Amino acid sequence: MIIIGEKINGSIPSVAKAIAEKNEEHIKKLAIAQAEAGATYIDVCASVEDEIEVETMKWLIDLVQSVTDTPIAVDSPNARTCVECMQYCKKPGLINSVSGEGDKMEVVFPVIADTKWEVVALLNGDTGIPKTAADRLKVFDDIMAKAKEYGIAPNRIHIDPLVEMLCTSDDGIAMVEEVMTSIKEQYPTIHITGAVSNISFNLPARKLVNQAFVVLAMKAGMDSAVLDPLNKDMLGMIYAAEACLGLDEMCMEYISAYREGLFGQKK
Amino acid sequence: MIIIGEKINGSIPSVAKAIAEKNEEHIKKLAIAQAEAGATYIDVCASVEDEIEVETMKWLIDLVQSVTDTPIAVDSPNARTCVECMQYCKKPGLINSVSGEGDKMEVVFPVIADTKWEVVALLNGDTGIPKTAADRLKVFDDIMAKAKEYGIAPNRIHIDPLVEMLCTSDDGIAMVEEVMTSIKEQYPTIHITGAVSNISFNLPARKLVNQAFVVLAMKAGMDSAVLDPLNKDMLGMIYAAEACLGLDEMCMEYISAYREGLFGQKK
Repeated sequence: MIIIGEKINGSIPSVAKAIAEKNEEHIKKLAIAQAEAGATYIDVCASVEDEIEVETMKWLIDLVQSVTDTPIAVDSPNARTCVECMQYCKKPGLINSVSGEGDKMEVVFPVIADTKWEVVALLNGDTGIPKTAADRLKVFDDIMAKAKEYGIAPNRIHIDPLVEMLCTSDDGIAMVEEVMTSIKEQYPTIHITGAVSNISFNLPARKLVNQAFVVLAMKAGMDSAVLDPLNKDMLGMIYAAEACLGLDEMCMEYISAYREGLFGQKK
Repeated sequence: MIIIGEKINGSIPSVAKAIAEKNEEHIKKLAIAQAEAGATYIDVCASVEDEIEVETMKWLIDLVQSVTDTPIAVDSPNARTCVECMQYCKKPGLINSVSGEGDKMEVVFPVIADTKWEVVALLNGDTGIPKTAADRLKVFDDIMAKAKEYGIAPNRIHIDPLVEMLCTSDDGIAMVEEVMTSIKEQYPTIHITGAVSNISFNLPARKLVNQAFVVLAMKAGMDSAVLDPLNKDMLGMIYAAEACLGLDEMCMEYISAYREGLFGQKK
């Protein structure tokens, strides 16, 4: 499972405070903790006014890179910011994100075309989040056509089918499962990702819903996720699901991760 | 989800002690707690020597029925004991269990034929636990043929496909999923059950593996399970999985169960 550690995000109040106060130690600590918990990428999102976004991103990226080698997920709603911040990264990372909206793909794809950078692509278009699986798959087709144009292989693309809150759904996660299954059938090497905790918005005991969702999404093909790698129950559930899904022979990965203290009882 | 509460079982040391010491309060407490947690059946298994099995079962059944109306799952490896104990039950319950082994079905099926009793049927035969899905499904066919002979409808049968430990599997739970899916396709109204915690035998942090398994098994059609209804995380995970699977419109059941305190933070 590819884990995109979500903890360095200016939309989290404590991180916004650290950014405002230039608290380097807070950011470094979050980077180290996520790297040690096994994050594949460390997401960096400034969530500040446009005028200071790039400089803030640079400050965050520099801090993360001062304490860990884990690659960066450059996270901004502005595709131009993402592209501009690539130069501050010491190694190829992940652009988070493009979508079918506006010129995002045209801004990002040519720049990453001949690199090892990967990219998250959301299945929304210019008119918002499509309601049906068929409409999301249409956006998907557009994304894959454009990626092909620039020679970006499917295994560098993380499709986010857009996880929405369960509490207003009348068929559970059936629609998003259908999108995932169809995508994975068409492109077996593509990655499927998502912001897991969206599913439990407005519900109590959110961690249970998040965990049940992750297990079912993994069954449907999700192999990448934006989440908090310090959430040991979630991490353990992912290892357990991989073992159940036959992705971990004799549970060796599960057992090693437990022994390393990544989940389970605090020692 | 049909929950068969597993806590009154003489193979659990504290219950064995309560049986040996005729500690009525201990048994009653377990019955009340499981009923309050929403158990559909309260399993009663004596696990004592043959000579005193029936009298011990009667003692246990009487105690359970003195404090709750929840029906009993009469649990013995001896089909004759199961049948004999039915008379002590005030209302129809569940026979736990028959299988393709010996004359178990011949002992139980004629007795429950014209009643409202339900029955758990394990997919093992005379030669032990079949290794392949095809061989388990052969036992299943035998069971369904025999049930038909006695006019026992599929919706009174809980098939236990036999959950085995994950740590020695090299394809995860694929085989047991295949059995479940095939059974549910053939008989949509049948129940699929299992002893959930078998899956995590010999693994650390067992509850995570149990929970991941339950979610995937529910996706494959499991709608009944032998487990500890006092395990709030497991119960919450089942409610969360039902919501994700589209079995709980607008998450109303999930939210009510949370409000009743069946899972989530202790108040």
